[in-house]
Amino acid sequence: MIPFNKPFIIGKELTYIEEAVKSGKISGDGMFTKKCQQFFEQKYHFPKVLMTTSCTDALEMAAILCNVEPGDEVIVPSYTFVSSANAFALRGAKIVFVDSCHDNPNIDPVEIEKHITEKTKVIVPVHYAGVACDMEKIMELAHKHNLFVVEDAAQAIDSYYTFSDGTRKALGSIGHFAAFSFHETKNIIAGEGGMLAINDPQYFDRAEVIREKGTNRSAFFRGEVNKYGWVDLGSSFLPSEIISAFLYAQLENLEIIQKKRLEIWNNYQNGLSALQEKGFITLPDMPSYATNNAHMYYIVCRSYEERTNLIQYLKAQDIHPVFHYLSLNKSDFFLANNPEIDIPNSDHFTDCLLRLPFYYELSETEQHKIIELINSFFT
Amino acid sequence: MIPFNKPFIIGKELTYIEEAVKSGKISGDGMFTKKCQQFFEQKYHFPKVLMTTSCTDALEMAAILCNVEPGDEVIVPSYTFVSSANAFALRGAKIVFVDSCHDNPNIDPVEIEKHITEKTKVIVPVHYAGVACDMEKIMELAHKHNLFVVEDAAQAIDSYYTFSDGTRKALGSIGHFAAFSFHETKNIIAGEGGMLAINDPQYFDRAEVIREKGTNRSAFFRGEVNKYGWVDLGSSFLPSEIISAFLYAQLENLEIIQKKRLEIWNNYQNGLSALQEKGFITLPDMPSYATNNAHMYYIVCRSYEERTNLIQYLKAQDIHPVFHYLSLNKSDFFLANNPEIDIPNSDHFTDCLLRLPFYYELSETEQHKIIELINSFFT
Ligand SMILES: Cc1ncc(COP(=O)(O)O)c(/C=N/[C@@H]2[C@H](O)[C@@H](O)[C@@H](OP(=O)(O)OP(=O)(O)OC[C@H]3O[C@@H](n4cc(C)c(=O)[nH]c4=O)C[C@@H]3O)O[C@@H]2C)c1O
Ligand SMILES: Cc1ncc(COP(=O)(O)O)c(/C=N/[C@@H]2[C@H](O)[C@@H](O)[C@@H](OP(=O)(O)OP(=O)(O)OC[C@H]3O[C@@H](n4cc(C)c(=O)[nH]c4=O)C[C@@H]3O)O[C@@H]2C)c1O
Repeated sequence: MIPFNKPFIIGKELTYIEEAVKSGKISGDGMFTKKCQQFFEQKYHFPKVLMTTSCTDALEMAAILCNVEPGDEVIVPSYTFVSSANAFALRGAKIVFVDSCHDNPNIDPVEIEKHITEKTKVIVPVHYAGVACDMEKIMELAHKHNLFVVEDAAQAIDSYYTFSDGTRKALGSIGHFAAFSFHETKNIIAGEGGMLAINDPQYFDRAEVIREKGTNRSAFFRGEVNKYGWVDLGSSFLPSEIISAFLYAQLENLEIIQKKRLEIWNNYQNGLSALQEKGFITLPDMPSYATNNAHMYYIVCRSYEERTNLIQYLKAQDIHPVFHYLSLNKSDFFLANNPEIDIPNSDHFTDCLLRLPFYYELSETEQHKIIELINSFFT
Repeated sequence: MIPFNKPFIIGKELTYIEEAVKSGKISGDGMFTKKCQQFFEQKYHFPKVLMTTSCTDALEMAAILCNVEPGDEVIVPSYTFVSSANAFALRGAKIVFVDSCHDNPNIDPVEIEKHITEKTKVIVPVHYAGVACDMEKIMELAHKHNLFVVEDAAQAIDSYYTFSDGTRKALGSIGHFAAFSFHETKNIIAGEGGMLAINDPQYFDRAEVIREKGTNRSAFFRGEVNKYGWVDLGSSFLPSEIISAFLYAQLENLEIIQKKRLEIWNNYQNGLSALQEKGFITLPDMPSYATNNAHMYYIVCRSYEERTNLIQYLKAQDIHPVFHYLSLNKSDFFLANNPEIDIPNSDHFTDCLLRLPFYYELSETEQHKIIELINSFFT
């Protein structure tokens, strides 16, 4: 059986968990949480990072930091995971869904501009498959209209964007805030886990408070105040040290993981390119400003029916590819409060995009088996 | 050094984490999450249990399930952790703080009744130190005024309440919902972790949806629908399997842990009772309807100054007792939007209550040292 995803232990995950327990602290914000935060801050130049229990929770922190409230509008791609929208809906915002680009699932800046109104407060670009959205255009729109940008970088660890002047920045370091995921389907995993990057120093203190149940507990534990209390809204966004210890062991092996994933990605791309040339499927498109973090390998079929048949064909051989998001403008929750709208590119990816098995331990033999079967399905 | 708290590994915590990874699933709602849920449902007769990332998050789920919204009032003791209030403040509720009983920190039902208005929607009894609030009276008030009861059972695992007709029920199984914590300071730990007990079947389905980011993903993975989508508000409330695996190993040793904690508790109670008789301190009071889950051992000093001196005296011997909550009606966040109010019993516990070191690995020698020093401080 070749599953879509498979979690893995790569280094000292269990040793570090044991160490955390022995150190006398496994609640949030212990030694391993700090090590993870430092790792990310140093490697990707995020001004500040706070580990969270999930990317969803990091998005919720961002929504509170942006002071999103009823009456505000938040622009989100329709082709994304529910959390990109839900985190803002929880604060009472009106979600304004816009379309993907024609040739890739990322949000279309032209469509964003069309949907900006006086009530717009936030734009949420989602870097699908770890491939950068057109951040230069998006940041220009944000500056022009005085909007927050919250990058949904759930899939975008270790990926970059190059501006037209040649400057290259890590995804997640460009908007005001960025949310990452360490869900088991991501490059670096902790089962469930996430982090928030805070790129504007004026939000450092409040972010810390919101993450600690609305208290100044972090300042207390640094010895800055002699008791801590309730000072703001907040939640318990901080992960157990058990999670951070596991994650840190993965981070120590980031380069090994990324090298392996890139090999898998390239094998897929090479092995399936003939099918693209023959017009059977479309392969991922890498814009010149983006890098490839090998988060995901997807193909786009010509129709929903063909994709369904391909899934069945591969499942019969015990290979488990999976479709992905469902246009959120067609969800029950959205339609309960909003009229129907037409978002065609998002619908196309909803119907035709297929993710192939992709995980650290996927062997070359397995990769070749998958590639061969897909080729034989079409030809 | 004798710290206030010390996390511990007692059984197969690490083996189970490894097993979870090998099973192919460490994201939420895997095998160990289900085992934990079943354990609690069977042992304490909760109709349904859902594991969460923290007690705070379980309280937030309850707030969404109660449809708390701006304009609603929620009654919360002033002497509690921030989260008991914050979870409802996040939904826009007005928090109405009421006082503790005179002789113990639990919420006073007489005070609750005085504060019920037409806008009241929820009462949040907090079972301080795992000792039951007067649930019979509280449930009567709730029925009379058609209110929700959300038990903050953060500290109340393995504790019971006996009704006047002799029926005995586990804490957390009496209100509509109950939130528990597995924070490292609790009896059973996962660093950070929690669960929601849902005691009314009409909320089972929605609870599952809210916990899964507002999607019907749980139904999808049971095969009840052929794709999942956005159907409600929600968040990612589900813990990593790594957390549940750790927790399950602790649960397998629940009886051993509880036996040991009860011994520690009784040693403190016996060793300090002479000081109570002499009027120096007050020891915990156990109402006839409550059981003792040995979550915490606290003493109540005669004054803030005396408590401060005692803390300093013990710290000089490298023993680390800690005070606890600060009356929430005096917090910056509350006072920013509300007038000053007087809540005297809560202030008394804020100033005078002291928690003594209490953890599974606290040795008899250490216990006796602490007891002797406290005795020598006063006499
Ligand atoms: C009823 C109730 N409801 C909900 C939840 C949520 O559970 P989740 O965590 O699962 O979401 C909890 C959980 N609370 C636990 C602890 O019980 C709580 O004490 C505190 O623990 P800490 O690690 O912060 O530290 P500590 O060891 O309690 O004290 C350390 C120093 O801090 C000083 N202090 C303390 C307080 C509290 C405060 O307001 N102000 C303050 O200046 C006292 C000391 O010197 O917070 C934890 C999360 C709860 O009890
Ligand atoms: C941009 C973005 N923003 C925010 C976050 C939040 O991160 P946190 O988790 O850290 O909070 C994420 C994270 N998402 C991950 C996955 O990427 C996502 O795919 C999904 O993974 P699943 O385990 O559910 O399953 P799967 O393997 O993706 O598919 C399994 C089957 O489910 C069918 N399916 C799938 C979807 C998605 C859907 O809507 N409807 C649907 O019927 C397809 C298959 O048959 O959810 C995860 C949390 C994100 O991507």
